[in-house]
Amino acid sequence: MSESDIGFKAAFDEAHKGHAEGGVPIGAALVSADGKVLGSGHNMRIQKGSATLHPPECVTLTQAEISALENAGRLPASIYHGATMYTTLSPCDMCTGACVMYKVKRVVIGENKNFLGGEEYLKSKGIEVVVLHNKELQTLMKTFIKEHPEEW
Amino acid sequence: MSESDIGFKAAFDEAHKGHAEGGVPIGAALVSADGKVLGSGHNMRIQKGSATLHPPECVTLTQAEISALENAGRLPASIYHGATMYTTLSPCDMCTGACVMYKVKRVVIGENKNFLGGEEYLKSKGIEVVVLHNKELQTLMKTFIKEHPEEW
Repeated sequence: MSESDIGFKAAFDEAHKGHAEGGVPIGAALVSADGKVLGSGHNMRIQKGSATLHPPECVTLTQAEISALENAGRLPASIYHGATMYTTLSPCDMCTGACVMYKVKRVVIGENKNFLGGEEYLKSKGIEVVVLHNKELQTLMKTFIKEHPEEW
Repeated sequence: MSESDIGFKAAFDEAHKGHAEGGVPIGAALVSADGKVLGSGHNMRIQKGSATLHPPECVTLTQAEISALENAGRLPASIYHGATMYTTLSPCDMCTGACVMYKVKRVVIGENKNFLGGEEYLKSKGIEVVVLHNKELQTLMKTFIKEHPEEW
């Protein structure tokens, strides 16, 4: 698992797409066991206009990993079980829970310097966790947090 | 926290509403620190027609606790922090994660005999967990699982 993975690139592109929209720059992509991008998405919290945490209309669709799962559409359970979730930032508790519920095989994380999510919980559930410590993503997120402390 | 709580009654009613619709009989309600039902909902997995886990359109809205959070609408963070989530069945990993993300104060569970969810994780995050061991809910869920093994 490396930064040259198709899934990493898809998640990375989603983070930049979110950034270009003025949103929280977090992206994710779900990749099948045979290396196909099943779905991708980025954080939509600002775009969807939540004042506090998430918009009331669809509280969870704003999260990058959940968006990737939604974007992937309905899949047989076996596909999830062999899949890898790529996410540019260490996953929040709800997305961690979604990965556990879907029983994905692996979660590849761009960086966890700006936020450390449920990595230990994923591991405790038998999910492989890989952290890439990507410098560009660290800077992207750090800059966002500095410029928008109220959104973080 | 007991079976006479307004939140327990709301969750219980939601479970029965789901059952009457032919769905998975799980209900939930979010109650404020001063005892008002902020939102309630029930599992919609069957109603929304998912073949495997959840429907692709909105993967998470089918879960009872998430539905209750959605139904509550946008609230200040402080309201969640004092709130109690009532759920008729021990929460799945994703709903556990949502309760942690929203930092609810307490999760009151109708029963955990048919399914034991993320209770330990909630406790590890400082959330109070109360299990009521309600016999009627145990029977309701047990009967459902027996009659619809493919849905469970």
